[in-house]
Amino acid sequence: MNKLKEMINERGEVRDGNILKVDSFLNHQLDAEFLYEMGNEFYRLFKDEGITKIVTIEVSGIAIASMAALFFKVPVVFAKKTDSVNLDKDVYSSKVYSYTKKKEYNIMVSKRYLNENDKLLIIDDFLAVGNAMKGLIDLANQSGAKVKGIGIVIEKGFQQGGEFLRSEGYNLKSLAIVDEMKNGNIIFREN
Amino acid sequence: MNKLKEMINERGEVRDGNILKVDSFLNHQLDAEFLYEMGNEFYRLFKDEGITKIVTIEVSGIAIASMAALFFKVPVVFAKKTDSVNLDKDVYSSKVYSYTKKKEYNIMVSKRYLNENDKLLIIDDFLAVGNAMKGLIDLANQSGAKVKGIGIVIEKGFQQGGEFLRSEGYNLKSLAIVDEMKNGNIIFREN
Repeated sequence: MNKLKEMINERGEVRDGNILKVDSFLNHQLDAEFLYEMGNEFYRLFKDEGITKIVTIEVSGIAIASMAALFFKVPVVFAKKTDSVNLDKDVYSSKVYSYTKKKEYNIMVSKRYLNENDKLLIIDDFLAVGNAMKGLIDLANQSGAKVKGIGIVIEKGFQQGGEFLRSEGYNLKSLAIVDEMKNGNIIFREN
Repeated sequence: MNKLKEMINERGEVRDGNILKVDSFLNHQLDAEFLYEMGNEFYRLFKDEGITKIVTIEVSGIAIASMAALFFKVPVVFAKKTDSVNLDKDVYSSKVYSYTKKKEYNIMVSKRYLNENDKLLIIDDFLAVGNAMKGLIDLANQSGAKVKGIGIVIEKGFQQGGEFLRSEGYNLKSLAIVDEMKNGNIIFREN
């Protein structure tokens, strides 16, 4: 999505440790109208998949997933992160290891909101090593729902999450894939 | 807002400890189209206030604030919750005591995203004792921005947050005010 690449070039900041900060429109301040455009783009990419629900994870996936849901006219379910070890029996839960925070946390979704008839589009803001995404797929599998698509705003193509998910056969589409961040320059993968 | 009251009656659940669960459309599963309608209602209520930014707090305020922002055509800034004591110097921060979690946490907003020229609409999903709202107002005051309106989806009218904020002169409007939850019955305040 060209406009996204322009936004990343203009407003993104490259930090040490391969960190790309897009706080000014995606992660802290939100450009709602642009998120709406990206939601429309996800609809264009996945509209033939019979999607019944959009799944995301708190925090930064929520706004973009909600915008996409306006086009798909389906509910959003966001997985909650929790340190709690005493998880309700009425939830699907999975463990996710965060490299940035260097700790494991639980994610969970109420069993009420996912079931075997669901065809899911999973949306998230970033894909890097893919641990959070594997956790979301695990929740979907526990419920019997089918993952019909994975929509990512910014994929870090130099980390292994995208390659792994594509090799597993997931219908993964990213609005922008960053292949390299060098000396502050951001190199995007060609479409 | 009558449709909200109907949704709360049909889909809300009253739990011990004056807890009202609206997980099926507002806090875990999100009804994006209904959130969009509520965003439009916030626009109707606050459109003459010259709003330049919508402020909310993670997690549950983000979706409704983003929908409202589509009508106001302004950015959303969401305050982040953090346990960290080593807060960046580039942030405004405040402490919030959570009665439900029985602990104090920090909230913060980057100084980049709030300034003295901003006219803010603060939006949140719930208002009860009002501690999170006081924290958000504190962040706004630190930045010099003016709080021109406070928009709440569900106000618990039997707790003191709403009364306090109105007595302080804030332009607070709630889409539904619950005055009583007794034996599973929800009594709304008349408009």
